[in-house]
Amino acid sequence: MATQNLYGMRTGANGPENKSPLPRYYRIQMELRKQIESGGWLPGEMIPAESQIADNYGVSLGTVRRAIQDLVTDGLLYRMQGKGTLVAGTNLKRETLRYYRFKKDFAKKESSHQITLLSLEKIPGNADINQFLKVPEDMELYLLKRVFTRSGQSIVYSISYLPSGIVCGLEQLSRHRLERVPLYLTLENKYGIPTKENEELISVEPADAETAGVLHVKEGDALLRIDMLCFTYRKRPYEYRTSWCTTGAYKLVRTY
Amino acid sequence: MATQNLYGMRTGANGPENKSPLPRYYRIQMELRKQIESGGWLPGEMIPAESQIADNYGVSLGTVRRAIQDLVTDGLLYRMQGKGTLVAGTNLKRETLRYYRFKKDFAKKESSHQITLLSLEKIPGNADINQFLKVPEDMELYLLKRVFTRSGQSIVYSISYLPSGIVCGLEQLSRHRLERVPLYLTLENKYGIPTKENEELISVEPADAETAGVLHVKEGDALLRIDMLCFTYRKRPYEYRTSWCTTGAYKLVRTY
Repeated sequence: MATQNLYGMRTGANGPENKSPLPRYYRIQMELRKQIESGGWLPGEMIPAESQIADNYGVSLGTVRRAIQDLVTDGLLYRMQGKGTLVAGTNLKRETLRYYRFKKDFAKKESSHQITLLSLEKIPGNADINQFLKVPEDMELYLLKRVFTRSGQSIVYSISYLPSGIVCGLEQLSRHRLERVPLYLTLENKYGIPTKENEELISVEPADAETAGVLHVKEGDALLRIDMLCFTYRKRPYEYRTSWCTTGAYKLVRTY
Repeated sequence: MATQNLYGMRTGANGPENKSPLPRYYRIQMELRKQIESGGWLPGEMIPAESQIADNYGVSLGTVRRAIQDLVTDGLLYRMQGKGTLVAGTNLKRETLRYYRFKKDFAKKESSHQITLLSLEKIPGNADINQFLKVPEDMELYLLKRVFTRSGQSIVYSISYLPSGIVCGLEQLSRHRLERVPLYLTLENKYGIPTKENEELISVEPADAETAGVLHVKEGDALLRIDMLCFTYRKRPYEYRTSWCTTGAYKLVRTY
């Protein structure tokens, strides 16, 4: 009879010790991957010792090591000298995660900014946005509006949509946290949602009335618009964000 | 007396077998790195066998393996199963190197484009641009103007500046090559200059008369402007490029 082991993996009739067209290390890798992607093991957490995993799955240490090495190569795990193997979480370059970097010229330093929370509310699902976010059309969304300022001047109006089913209780976050901690970091630490990939669509668009008001420009003025979709494990989108940026002396920085 | 070995590394009095505050594997790593960054070993080339390197430097195989592993981790070398260790060259993601990706929406496919060469000429150095490119102010530059079209419509006007001291003889490239092969690939294959990093400054700017003419828009119309600096080994810039893009239904894609 099949039984559930410590990791929720079925052993026995369908366990890894049975005949299967897939190599053993690969099946163990899939199990560990599931463990990470389901949030069973959270970003920053240490995973059990290799010997313990080997015992639990009834496979050799070599099989476990190969499975873990593959997950390290894929960026899902990382090794820390003298500590063990940890869940990687967000592993994009730190500078890449600072979405609003601006500088005057290549040789100049990046400017710094402050964040002000304008509003955070729950709204009904929106056909287009829920489709981008790959959630049911009737799922409510959190709508988070923030403005980024440089030397007291508004430079970015940022409007984020997050599925209520993924980040439930977002409205309980303090203003302090929303203004001082990068959103991706809060989502990783509070919800176990690491950022694995982002896609941006960049265009020039005339300011609508609301945006013009926030950025103190004239309605219809040309602004830089960034539509961003943020992804966590298994290319699952967790945030859709529209950013309206003024670019005069300062330009948006992207490095890769 | 000091002698030069096969790789131009001094052995004897100052060679790696002497006392030094740096660990042996690190000194070997620096020597191999120099070999790569100087173009002694070109992108795509296989490096000598580990045993041969060990012999040549008079160090153990373990020392060579550790040095090579570090260079693999740094992305300067890569291993090919059953073949050997090769010089990595450009190792940015292939999609990242397609600078002019456009799509209508997240769910849509990227559009394709064609390149037309407008001109390629040598011009005197320019104070600002030569400073970005970190070459002497009086070094001549290649000025390459291209237009990118989608379904016959001009969408990007691209103006590249390349130092004549780095890419000498660029004017001998055929029109066919300049219109059919991505420029980064030509520079890697013909000049051994791999692309290691790019920096972009993105802004909204009114079209000047020349750009308006090329893109068939009105002078003063707001366009998306990308200033790009491309870097090869040791963060050495090899190209400064200004791109003027029209973004209407199609938006510029950036992923990371």
